[in-house]
Amino acid sequence: MNTAASVGVVSPSRARFDAPLALRCGRTLPGFELVYETYGQLNADRSNAVLVCHALSGSHHLAGTYADQPDNPGWWDNLIGPGKPLDTNRFFVIGVNNLGGCYGSSGPQSVNPATGKPWGADFPFVTVEDWVDSQARLADHLGIERFAAVVGGSLGGMQAMNWAIQYPDRIAHAVVIASAPRLTAQNIAFNEVARQAILKDPDFHGGHYYEHGVVPARGLSQARMVGHITYLSDDSMDEKFGRRLRHGKPIYSYDVEFEVESYLRYQGEKFPGYFDANTYLLTTKALDYYDPAAGHGGDLTKALSVASADFLVVSFSTDWRFSPGRSKEIVNALVHSDKRVSYAEIDCHAGHDSFLLDDPLYHGVLRAYFDNIAG
Amino acid sequence: MNTAASVGVVSPSRARFDAPLALRCGRTLPGFELVYETYGQLNADRSNAVLVCHALSGSHHLAGTYADQPDNPGWWDNLIGPGKPLDTNRFFVIGVNNLGGCYGSSGPQSVNPATGKPWGADFPFVTVEDWVDSQARLADHLGIERFAAVVGGSLGGMQAMNWAIQYPDRIAHAVVIASAPRLTAQNIAFNEVARQAILKDPDFHGGHYYEHGVVPARGLSQARMVGHITYLSDDSMDEKFGRRLRHGKPIYSYDVEFEVESYLRYQGEKFPGYFDANTYLLTTKALDYYDPAAGHGGDLTKALSVASADFLVVSFSTDWRFSPGRSKEIVNALVHSDKRVSYAEIDCHAGHDSFLLDDPLYHGVLRAYFDNIAG
Repeated sequence: MNTAASVGVVSPSRARFDAPLALRCGRTLPGFELVYETYGQLNADRSNAVLVCHALSGSHHLAGTYADQPDNPGWWDNLIGPGKPLDTNRFFVIGVNNLGGCYGSSGPQSVNPATGKPWGADFPFVTVEDWVDSQARLADHLGIERFAAVVGGSLGGMQAMNWAIQYPDRIAHAVVIASAPRLTAQNIAFNEVARQAILKDPDFHGGHYYEHGVVPARGLSQARMVGHITYLSDDSMDEKFGRRLRHGKPIYSYDVEFEVESYLRYQGEKFPGYFDANTYLLTTKALDYYDPAAGHGGDLTKALSVASADFLVVSFSTDWRFSPGRSKEIVNALVHSDKRVSYAEIDCHAGHDSFLLDDPLYHGVLRAYFDNIAG
Repeated sequence: MNTAASVGVVSPSRARFDAPLALRCGRTLPGFELVYETYGQLNADRSNAVLVCHALSGSHHLAGTYADQPDNPGWWDNLIGPGKPLDTNRFFVIGVNNLGGCYGSSGPQSVNPATGKPWGADFPFVTVEDWVDSQARLADHLGIERFAAVVGGSLGGMQAMNWAIQYPDRIAHAVVIASAPRLTAQNIAFNEVARQAILKDPDFHGGHYYEHGVVPARGLSQARMVGHITYLSDDSMDEKFGRRLRHGKPIYSYDVEFEVESYLRYQGEKFPGYFDANTYLLTTKALDYYDPAAGHGGDLTKALSVASADFLVVSFSTDWRFSPGRSKEIVNALVHSDKRVSYAEIDCHAGHDSFLLDDPLYHGVLRAYFDNIAG
């Protein structure tokens, strides 16, 4: 009997950190706030906490629903809950909105204390390393000395990996899904195209669009459309949309003709309604900068040598944004630095987005791994 | 001894066609002009003509240079010339700017006789089939009953393929390079992103920007940047740019940091200086619509059954826009309809753009094939 259930109605919490945070960009945040959610109960010896890090457009809202938004489950609701692969009957699971985010944590939309106005484009650049530092502050706040696991997909996987490098004593397991040890030139190129669309939008106003009462919706939509192409595989797009025409035949117009155009426009148009362009810019830069091997002459094995966590690395056969080969780079470096690592390449058609789906094989791997973690 | 040389200084010609041209979109052009170039000499029995069809941003200027632009060789100058693989000592080679183009043939920038103003977005949608029809008119004009070969890469390859379907008696060989029998949903999605960037540019003015003295440069640049990512392979981008930083270290800015950003911005910024946004829109739609199998229940074998030409199909190992698998669809359909077809998959790192390069193996295949064509 499958007893998996939703965590039910949840609500976010907010933590304020008054000690300054020195960032990799050279600037210092005088203080900051993080919005987070938790599911399950922290056990008596505080050993069952699992931190879940989000990707580009994710948030702290991992599972369950808000009382006033019953149709808006958390983005990893299929994974996290009582009886689910990341079982909240056993684990105390934490989702946190990253610094620089747009879901309540300090970011471009927050008030810059020096000016009394929103930071906008003046919010400092943040890196994966900075996020991990800020998440460690949250762990301190919650009384968690050591995470049973830090988990993430895509950019979230980079944070999980870097937890094992930055705070080796504070993480028992790193679960790195659909990720990569650094972006390729092509990855950076896609991010740059997205940024240029936003930066060149006449409504961007140098990043201070809040003061003008507008948002660079055209640019942000454009960025999102490009993103969505890279999240899906060629095959899954063909399965989903193929060459199907909305009107059954060409209408010789720039209105929607092919179903895939309808999908892209819809995704693009709704995005500025819930995501902030400055956060998008900052986050793509954090992706571009991430390269833990860079400080070790490009040697990822050396970069990972300080880690003491066990690793689970998962990739998806049709993911061309961060292909299985990119995950294998991580696995190879871990093997060469004598770390314990499990690796699964899941045959799933959905491309990079596979990490969000409840593919049985994929969830089976995660369930088996989490079941073996001593909480 | 390699005696290959440039065709030297060339100049374009212009042909006017006064008979109306019925288009697939249902509209009729009352008349039209095509700009073209020729290289080599048409032989006495007019049997040595080779038509070269261009791709998205190409033109009729295939080889040689213009007297006033000595640094602007034709886009396939490495292939076409005396002693080159497509040898102008043997063949009479013709390049033509497609209808709807922006290099002199009738298109959005031409004057609409009904209004006395530029057509702009009112220029009719043109398809691969329409281009082939218009090229057949040019063949008539030049006194060419039958082409020794029709050749093209990418969208040009689609035209070559369709010549064999539309005018089977007028083409002896079809050379289809880095092409596909139809776009996938992902291909269409990339085109749609490019179109949205142009259509949403405030300077687009519904396609009538000429009258406003502006061009939708932001949108067209954006389209070009996305395009360039799809023309190169992940590996070739890594070889060309890797993660090299212009300043040697992160500067935490939205100015150019990674070299690949510099490349993309440069390509994007220069494009509106030589290419027209309405032509870009029209041409991407022609790509999307192309699907010769559609009229045969999706059966490409049936679509190609009328062809009598011999085929050479060439693909490139790292081309992910039109992968080798797409070329093999064409080859399989030709084999199943008992056509004579040669196929070469070239191991070249440069992605889709490989078809423009003078890779020795690739040019060797073309040279061998053309050498065996009776001119």
